[in-house]
This record gives sequence, structure tokens and C-alpha cells, in this order.
Amino acid sequence: MSSPVDLSTPISQVGLVGVGVMGAPMARNLMKAGFSVVAWNRTRARMDALVGDGASAGNSAADVAARSELVITIVSDSPDVVAVATGSDGVFAGARPGTIVVDMSTISPAVTRDLAAQASAHALTWLDAPVSGGEAGAIAGTLTIMVGGDAPAFARAQPVLSAMGSRVTHMGPSGHGQMTKLCNQILVAINLLGASEALSFASRAGLDVERVYSALTAGAANSWALEKLGRKMIDRDFAPAFKVKLQQKDLRLVSEAARDVRTPVLGTALVEQLLRTLEAQDKGELGTQALITVLEQLGAR
Amino acid sequence: MSSPVDLSTPISQVGLVGVGVMGAPMARNLMKAGFSVVAWNRTRARMDALVGDGASAGNSAADVAARSELVITIVSDSPDVVAVATGSDGVFAGARPGTIVVDMSTISPAVTRDLAAQASAHALTWLDAPVSGGEAGAIAGTLTIMVGGDAPAFARAQPVLSAMGSRVTHMGPSGHGQMTKLCNQILVAINLLGASEALSFASRAGLDVERVYSALTAGAANSWALEKLGRKMIDRDFAPAFKVKLQQKDLRLVSEAARDVRTPVLGTALVEQLLRTLEAQDKGELGTQALITVLEQLGAR
Repeated sequence: MSSPVDLSTPISQVGLVGVGVMGAPMARNLMKAGFSVVAWNRTRARMDALVGDGASAGNSAADVAARSELVITIVSDSPDVVAVATGSDGVFAGARPGTIVVDMSTISPAVTRDLAAQASAHALTWLDAPVSGGEAGAIAGTLTIMVGGDAPAFARAQPVLSAMGSRVTHMGPSGHGQMTKLCNQILVAINLLGASEALSFASRAGLDVERVYSALTAGAANSWALEKLGRKMIDRDFAPAFKVKLQQKDLRLVSEAARDVRTPVLGTALVEQLLRTLEAQDKGELGTQALITVLEQLGAR
Repeated sequence: MSSPVDLSTPISQVGLVGVGVMGAPMARNLMKAGFSVVAWNRTRARMDALVGDGASAGNSAADVAARSELVITIVSDSPDVVAVATGSDGVFAGARPGTIVVDMSTISPAVTRDLAAQASAHALTWLDAPVSGGEAGAIAGTLTIMVGGDAPAFARAQPVLSAMGSRVTHMGPSGHGQMTKLCNQILVAINLLGASEALSFASRAGLDVERVYSALTAGAANSWALEKLGRKMIDRDFAPAFKVKLQQKDLRLVSEAARDVRTPVLGTALVEQLLRTLEAQDKGELGTQALITVLEQLGAR
């Protein structure tokens, strides 16, 4: 067995598994803050630019873990995290005792609790730390990071997390980061519906939507969704910042978790069905602001 | 017939019909800005404090109108506005030619267009100018004011409106102020649902809602509703800033206007039904943030 991580010194070696739209800018912010980064991605080509910027390339998730004091995983969905964590070439197989694994993907709270237990059996500590703020927040280093897991591990990980986010909150035990992210997605979904319904009604009523936007963003009607996504709806800019299909994945997680805790989520369910309509129209790759087009189709011609 | 209003000088005499939770602080801001205010209210006792602060008391809506260059009406619902405008002792009966009538109540856009036509037949100009921002905004003079009607009348009224609001927007012709307010209420309603659903889910999931609030107000989940009403939900403060029964009145107006323009409003309809549940529980006098209690009742015991 390899030697344990020295817990008496601050973390300097950070591993990264998943170099996508989010992972790549997060790695750059880590390097800017002085951390050494070793990275691995299933699709090797995605890593080239990051290596050019100073990151080392690992040969596998296990190799990345072996060379790190803290390993970040940021991939798409629960099965992807399970694969990179528990696979034969995965993080658990390579990590030294005392390593902190920080999963920044948005996945199931139930799967998270299971992975945390497995990590513990390997003498590792699992933190669930999903993010909000999208690619723009990842680039700017202003992500909201919601962390579940062991408090001392959170304290040790905090300088690493603060290099990527502007509000880093310890939410409670394992799974509470993911549960908080689901609360975040409930709001993101329902506020998106609000912006879509108000602006489609405004158009239908013959209003000047530009002036409506100006008046409504000033007061009690305002939301991040209205400001950012409402702007794009008016501009008919449906390019993805957050894709319909990814929002659907998150709402499926909300739906499952809500069933587990036995509470209906009426508004979220409505938005899920409307986004499914977009997917059925082969628009799953558009940004979520395309929801307004579904509402427009519902109104009179 | 009394002499017409002199349109070559700026407005100095402002009438106010309706001295309620909104009207009283708005009158005080008008006086602070240097306008003379003459007021009338159906319940006379409500006017005493305002008269103590320097306003004149009118004997009727007609009397107020006769003594003003611009008359503000701010009462509860469409029939109330019709009564104070068209009654035998109403604004139309007393107003001199050239008077601007500014209705700052939230009422039906269709009724508004009808009143504007009647005003025109009396050589008066009708502006619909509903507000957002509640009692706090009325006191602070930071209301959002959404104005429909004749552009020259809007320009003449603007200094008066600016004494009460921080964002005053001319939305278009008659009725467009009210239609914009309905867009505002769509967002207010749906964003309220978002905050309620996310925070009730958070409690049910065993999260620390205080930390959830802190994390979620930082990013893409944020809204005025989450910040202001979510705060009150966590504090179990259901005292009214905006009453359930008034929100219901506004959502009825949305529902009617949406039917007129032939567009479904799925999210608003859902919130309307949930608020009706509160009313059925005799909670119509609570603040709208009490919506969370309905969602809590839906979950498992």
C-alpha cells in the first residue's frame, strides 16, 4: 500500500477527473491559485489545451488519484461518477489513504451516500460539492459550491474550493451538497417557467417586450432567470449555456429525491413535462431558455 | 363648465382618491416633492393622519378632481375604480377639461380601455399606472410604475410619478400599463412557487434551510421572491406585506386577460389553485409567503 497523504500540510497537489466545459476552466483557476493540477479525461484530446497551460496528464483516474492529495471528479451523471470512482482504473483503486475525493458533478444524493461509504472503507473521505453558475461562473471563479460531508475534510478542502467559487457553503453530512443543488435546480426550473410565461404572455398581449423587461427587472418580479434567460428569450438566442437535456437530467434527480422524501414537487414536475416537449421536438441541445417556444406554440395562432 | 387646466405650466395640484396602505405613503412622497395634495377616501377616518401631515381633505372624488390638475386613483379592484371615476360624485363629474387621471390600482386592462374612452369623452386623459413594490416601495418612493396611455400626458405626469417611483416606464397605449402589471404578477406568482417548493423540499430532505438560503441566494437560483419571501418562510413570518386574497384578485385578472388573448398560463394557474387552497383554509389575510404551508401539508407526515 502506498504511503498515506500527509495531513499536517495544506493541500498543494490537486487531481481532476473530467475536463469538460466546467472542468477545464476550474483547473485553470486552480493553477492560477498556485495548485499543481494533474488531470485525466475519457476523451484524451480534450486535455491537450489544459496540458499546454501547465497541467500534467494522468494515465487514468487511478493514476490521477495516486498523484494527488485531493481529487475532483466532474462528469455528467451518477453512473459516470460511479465508474470513475469505483472502476478498476478508478479513483478508489489509486488513491492513497487520507485523500479527499470531491465530486463536483450533479448526481443522486442516494448514490452519493453510497460512494461516501465506499470511500470511507478505502480510508478516503468523500465530499459532494456540486456547483451552480455554469460555464461563465467556472471561468470567472465565481461558482456557488454546495458541500456535503465530513467537516474537517471540508475545512481542509476549502482553499481548493475557494479557488473556483465565490460562495462555498458546508451544507451538512454526505448527500447534503447534492440535495441543496436539487433545491437550486427546483428554483432554476420554476423561475425559468416564470420568465417564459410572463414574456410569452407579454408578446401575445401586444406589449413591447423590451420595455416589459426593463420594468420587470426593476422590482418584485425579478430573478436571475428573468435577467439572464429572459434577455436571451427576447433576443431569440437559444444557444446553450445550460442545455435542455442536462436540465432534464437534474429534474429527474429532483423527481427521484422528492419521491424518496415523500413530497410532491408540482411546479418542478410541470417544467419537466414542458422541457420534455422540447426534447420531443429534438431541441434537447438548445439552452433552457428555449422553454418559451413551447409556451408560444400553446397560444392561439 | 369650469375653466380648463392650464397645460402651459407644470403640475402642482395633485388629487388622490384612495388613502390606503399604498395611497397614504404615496401622498407623503408627493408632498415631500413639493406638490399640493388634496385627498378623499371612502372611509373618512383614514384621512386624518394625512391631513395632519399637510394634505387637504376633499368632500368627494368629484371635489378632489375639481381642485386638481392630475388625479390619482388607487383603490382595490375594477368595480371600485369604475365607481370613483364614473359615479355621480366621481372624478369625471368634477374634473376640469385637460385634467390627467392616473389610475394606479391594479385592474382589468379591458375595463381600463373603456374608462380611457369615457375620460376622453369628458376632455380628460386617462393613464393606467399600476405599481409594483408594495407598501415598503410606496414608503421609500421606490415603486416600479408601469404606464399606459397618451405619450404627451405621460410626459406631463412624469414628475408626479417620479416622486413615488424609482423606475417609471411608459409601456404603450391605454391598457398596456395594466397588461405589464399582469406580466409582473405572473412572475411574482411563479417565483413565489419556486421559493416555496425549494424550501419545503429542503426541510423535508432534512437540510439546514438557513444554509440553503445562503447558498441559493448567491447564484442562478436567486429571485426577489427567494430573497424577501423565502426569508419570511424560514422565519415562519406569515404577516401580510401582500395578502393572499389580493394576489388571488390579480391572478384572476391574469386569467381573464390570458383568455382574452387566447394563451394558456399553466404556471400561474397552478399557483392560483394553491392560493385558493389557502383561502379555503381561511388564510386569505396572510401574506403570500404562506404558500409554503400548503406544500408542506402535501408532503408525508
